[in-house]
Amino acid sequence: MEITVDTRLIGLLGTPIGHSISSRMHNETFKALGLDYCYLPIEIGREHLGDVVNGLKHLNFRGFGVTKPNKIDIMQYMDEMDELAAMMGSCNTVVNSSGILKGYNTDGDGFVRSLLSESNINLKDTTVFCFGAGGTAKACCFSLAYRGAKKIYISSRSGINCEVLANEINLRIKPIAESVKEKDSDYYLGKIAESDVLLNMTGMGMHSNQNETPIKKEALDPRQICYDATYNPTRTRFLSEAESVGCKIINGLGMVVNQGAMQFKLWTGKPEPYAMMENVVKQIINEYK
Amino acid sequence: MEITVDTRLIGLLGTPIGHSISSRMHNETFKALGLDYCYLPIEIGREHLGDVVNGLKHLNFRGFGVTKPNKIDIMQYMDEMDELAAMMGSCNTVVNSSGILKGYNTDGDGFVRSLLSESNINLKDTTVFCFGAGGTAKACCFSLAYRGAKKIYISSRSGINCEVLANEINLRIKPIAESVKEKDSDYYLGKIAESDVLLNMTGMGMHSNQNETPIKKEALDPRQICYDATYNPTRTRFLSEAESVGCKIINGLGMVVNQGAMQFKLWTGKPEPYAMMENVVKQIINEYK
Repeated sequence: MEITVDTRLIGLLGTPIGHSISSRMHNETFKALGLDYCYLPIEIGREHLGDVVNGLKHLNFRGFGVTKPNKIDIMQYMDEMDELAAMMGSCNTVVNSSGILKGYNTDGDGFVRSLLSESNINLKDTTVFCFGAGGTAKACCFSLAYRGAKKIYISSRSGINCEVLANEINLRIKPIAESVKEKDSDYYLGKIAESDVLLNMTGMGMHSNQNETPIKKEALDPRQICYDATYNPTRTRFLSEAESVGCKIINGLGMVVNQGAMQFKLWTGKPEPYAMMENVVKQIINEYK
Repeated sequence: MEITVDTRLIGLLGTPIGHSISSRMHNETFKALGLDYCYLPIEIGREHLGDVVNGLKHLNFRGFGVTKPNKIDIMQYMDEMDELAAMMGSCNTVVNSSGILKGYNTDGDGFVRSLLSESNINLKDTTVFCFGAGGTAKACCFSLAYRGAKKIYISSRSGINCEVLANEINLRIKPIAESVKEKDSDYYLGKIAESDVLLNMTGMGMHSNQNETPIKKEALDPRQICYDATYNPTRTRFLSEAESVGCKIINGLGMVVNQGAMQFKLWTGKPEPYAMMENVVKQIINEYK
């Protein structure tokens, strides 16, 4: 489809984005639905981000997708922020309404929706243990708290980030988060045993470090739901071991599709084409193999 | 072809550009040659032109095409100007070399090349009479003078613009231009009779005013070459009458293709695909009919 002056553009702002799955996910969905939109990858870091946003908002841009390293810096160029995105201090989606830019974050809610739709838990009765306290963990834990989770434990290798993250959640949303240090101590293992959902948000087990896992198999209980933000490979070591123990396992596919489908709705105003986007992402993952 | 981070973008900066022929000319040529370039129409006027240029130069833009109303205003954002474009004070082409923007103008030279390739004149022996003193006339007359024409007469409805244009050419290039007023006076008709090439740069005879012509049929001489910047219709009233008198006639097709082929070379560094671009433009014109 040719790009004309009527084509609504959506830019992906980040670097490096050469292998961004989201470009294909969005473009193939637009094409399949016959929508005159184009998702345009824009390799840009923090240095010239303001110039780019300031220039592009005069073009026919309906919005932006935002990825590393720009999710925090982009906020200073927003005219408005969605409440949850403002609380977590991270923006992965920008909607341009006649020059007014509003920032959202669909990463965390994409995860929560995936968790709820692929299990039968009720958030208000759910205790979560999150391994990792980086950007993905932050978005997911903030959404869990914002959407009503009972309790969130957070652990990270450094131990510093998880304390900062737990404090932010407690101050900005409600006091349900606790950082858990001293890996493999009785206290640590007790909190894991107490949890209904275990989240691997560390990147351990991704293709570059497939042998890593955030937790020993022996610490898992069959009643637990084990969720891994990674979708490539589709079964990390964490998920494989959890499955062998008898846990319900969920990988990051639903998270990436949900956050993308929510972006789609924000940009186009149309219903989320979840099934279509899921098929596109599955096809892309298959091509990687 | 999908747009990736490697796709070299070229933006067309102007308004209104909804029916720009150049977008299709360039995109279909890139596609036919298998080049990963995309010509992107950007509906933008003078107000936010600086913001747009300043933002886009951080993207993977190889350059810009520039059209109304931005050909003059764009110059203030250039780091360098080609000599001829600087002299005429008009820029229709920008090349981005690692963030250094250089302005060119291929309109006038596109016309001169078309005139020379479609006739057997020698510029240094050629006297030209140009009807019209707007942007197109300006570019063409400057190029004629810059490339060595013997004499240029310029006439315009208002009479003011042609005097300004003739003065600019005389001061900046060489004193060979003269504005001719008092339409249909003996002096005026004498200068027409003295000329080897008559140029219609007024827009008279375009689809919106097909019955207009800048000169009476009786004033034409069969030895004269009659050139019309209009290519739609392919034969304006001016060209039809000139043909009936026995003049050699040339329409603006070669001009638009030549200026586009020169842009192509500036942006890509590759040889000009003249024949391919001509076919694309002919096809587009046929679709208009």
